[in-house]
Amino acid sequence: MSTEFKIAIAGLGTVGSGVVKALTARGEDLSRRAGRTLRIVGVSARDAKKARGFAVTGWTDDPLSLAKGDADVVVELIGGDEGIARQLVETALDNGKHVVTANKALMAKHGKVLADLAEKRGVTLKFEAAAAGGIPIVKVLREDLIAHGVDAVKGILNGTCNYILTEMEASGRSFDDVLKEAQAKGYAEADPTLDVGGGDTAHKLALLASLAFGTAPDLDAVAVEGISHITADDIAFASEFGYRIKLLGVARKVGDAIDQKVHPTMVRRSSLLASVSGAANGVLVDAGEAGSFFFSGRGAGEAPTASAVIADIVEAAAGGGASPVFGRPAAGLEPLKRADGKAAASPWYLRFEVLDVPGVLAAIAGNLADSGVSIESMIQRGRAPGEPVAIVMITHETPQARVERALKAIGASDKVRARPCMIPMES
Amino acid sequence: MSTEFKIAIAGLGTVGSGVVKALTARGEDLSRRAGRTLRIVGVSARDAKKARGFAVTGWTDDPLSLAKGDADVVVELIGGDEGIARQLVETALDNGKHVVTANKALMAKHGKVLADLAEKRGVTLKFEAAAAGGIPIVKVLREDLIAHGVDAVKGILNGTCNYILTEMEASGRSFDDVLKEAQAKGYAEADPTLDVGGGDTAHKLALLASLAFGTAPDLDAVAVEGISHITADDIAFASEFGYRIKLLGVARKVGDAIDQKVHPTMVRRSSLLASVSGAANGVLVDAGEAGSFFFSGRGAGEAPTASAVIADIVEAAAGGGASPVFGRPAAGLEPLKRADGKAAASPWYLRFEVLDVPGVLAAIAGNLADSGVSIESMIQRGRAPGEPVAIVMITHETPQARVERALKAIGASDKVRARPCMIPMES
Repeated sequence: MSTEFKIAIAGLGTVGSGVVKALTARGEDLSRRAGRTLRIVGVSARDAKKARGFAVTGWTDDPLSLAKGDADVVVELIGGDEGIARQLVETALDNGKHVVTANKALMAKHGKVLADLAEKRGVTLKFEAAAAGGIPIVKVLREDLIAHGVDAVKGILNGTCNYILTEMEASGRSFDDVLKEAQAKGYAEADPTLDVGGGDTAHKLALLASLAFGTAPDLDAVAVEGISHITADDIAFASEFGYRIKLLGVARKVGDAIDQKVHPTMVRRSSLLASVSGAANGVLVDAGEAGSFFFSGRGAGEAPTASAVIADIVEAAAGGGASPVFGRPAAGLEPLKRADGKAAASPWYLRFEVLDVPGVLAAIAGNLADSGVSIESMIQRGRAPGEPVAIVMITHETPQARVERALKAIGASDKVRARPCMIPMES
Repeated sequence: MSTEFKIAIAGLGTVGSGVVKALTARGEDLSRRAGRTLRIVGVSARDAKKARGFAVTGWTDDPLSLAKGDADVVVELIGGDEGIARQLVETALDNGKHVVTANKALMAKHGKVLADLAEKRGVTLKFEAAAAGGIPIVKVLREDLIAHGVDAVKGILNGTCNYILTEMEASGRSFDDVLKEAQAKGYAEADPTLDVGGGDTAHKLALLASLAFGTAPDLDAVAVEGISHITADDIAFASEFGYRIKLLGVARKVGDAIDQKVHPTMVRRSSLLASVSGAANGVLVDAGEAGSFFFSGRGAGEAPTASAVIADIVEAAAGGGASPVFGRPAAGLEPLKRADGKAAASPWYLRFEVLDVPGVLAAIAGNLADSGVSIESMIQRGRAPGEPVAIVMITHETPQARVERALKAIGASDKVRARPCMIPMES
């Protein structure tokens, strides 16, 4: 075995602990793979005194010092798209150190600039753990499915949302109920906004889109809708129609432009994406002539995320990963040309909560007709007198903009309770 | 862009043509990824005059000359585990050239020796296309799911078998019927033995097992059973029980030993492997604490296989892939310790074709009881008088050796027609 490969780790939360444990438990095998002895030389975290169940070597209170020491690679597991995480990554790259990060927000917002810096300094910047945890989708898009181009990437990229939707389906309970339980069990954050609002999925999607299409990551171009408005009724109706509701991140080519969207989607129960249950992740890649490829597994948690971080560390140590950070040289990553996402057509699931009074259905039907939305099927179920009634419709294939126009008109009626719900369906 | 990366291609069948076409159509993008201009400098194939629909540069009648010319990488797409293919790969490596091959038989039989040679010469030997076509499972096992070890790899690795089984289920037709149709359509070879007999799957499995477990590929240690004895009845019964029959290659750890098997298996209809239909491939990897990961897509054909070959070429050009050929240094690849595969326990599907005469069932039940095989459920259906009757049984979880002992006794009876059929069921 030739020279040592020195590793500095900033951040010892769930993922950082997992990385230290795996490097300790399987260091010998991993070193054989890397062709160099892997050694942790520096560690930093918020709380020096926290009991972690493993010994820490090379402790420092100043994470930035890790970027200036003798480490060959700095592993950034602090998080956040600004502040200390960004500073650490920039300083480490600038000092000619390889960087491995799990930071999706940082890479989605500053990925191009950081990649440019890494490539100028001749070091690698790797971020496999930033999207879909243990599923090596970053490398697959960067290095494997490259010969025939990519037409679309569709992914279940947030385990918390998928866990909630899976539980809602299994138990028939409401979103709020299941969220509370998930928080109690530690599956959802105290502030769940970034997960259930779709923001986390958007970060990951922006990275996958960049890798797939050779554009600079563009988080602002992602249209984002979360899952907090999905009701137990929606889940039940989906099931009745042979579908399942999933929060998807979708990036696809539309001519020479790219459409990036995060939104709940009705996927057929027999489809591969529908098979992704609980906290798992799954990604479907349409790779042109080569066909569709599907990848699934655990997308978060200690071991799966540490698995991705360690693959990056070993590759950096082996001297591999000489390919550009986003697959193509950063200097040439073009800004993304935004497609008109609202032109996308699909059948739609629509749900209205209405007062049970004469004329409501006629008014809704009229508004839909005015916007050119035609209905394929409809379900209305009776409830207790005086209570609002759910009307559910499936449309024929219709562009999103038209459906939104109709729903705006319908939502303005005082007979319609709450915001009407619209969910695209796989056709 | 720095220096050119010179490519020599030996073999212009389906895959070779796909490689030339993709390198031609997307050469600029692929060169940007590699950081070097990719250029085909030499080509060889059996028939110089065949119309191929693309121009060929650097033609030679002597493939071996490609290993001695100025190419940086030699792409071996000739096939066969001896003869010219082996000679070409050895000569190319010996002359310090990178080698990319799709040759599963060569790698399964001589992988360790060739890897050793490549590592001694400081060049890469890549074989992504040798298993599961466009699914980058070789790289996933070699470089990605490495932090927590692998407990098992289970794969649908032969598209021809999966196509036949899928068609048998969809149409209710016999194996022979569907095979003939597949041959007429070009989905199956004129001599289908290697595919339907399980040999092709065994080659691929031996490679995946080596990558997963750090052992030398050991084709001889794979117990192989094909699909030609599967009847339309078996498929129909499987369906009735909620299962689907798939030809699986399974490699798994049993203590410090490895069990490698290829055999038809009943997988639950709701499982990920059951979702792999038609000519597709799918692989499930149990990656210890990191959990299970699933990968599926097209496993053969021009574009998917070319996709894998090109990923290898680009990685070699980028100077990546410095990691060992089988993940760990070849010199240290240990011989595999064989597990006793017949000790593996599962529920079993059993089918007997018997004469409709008194006492047959009693005799079968007696033989099963003698070997300690207990029956969970049984189906017997009437047929026309005088015709043989199918008796189908599902056993409780039982070691394979015991079921085989019972079936040997049962098969010896002159009341039992044909060889009894036994298929393990996912429990």
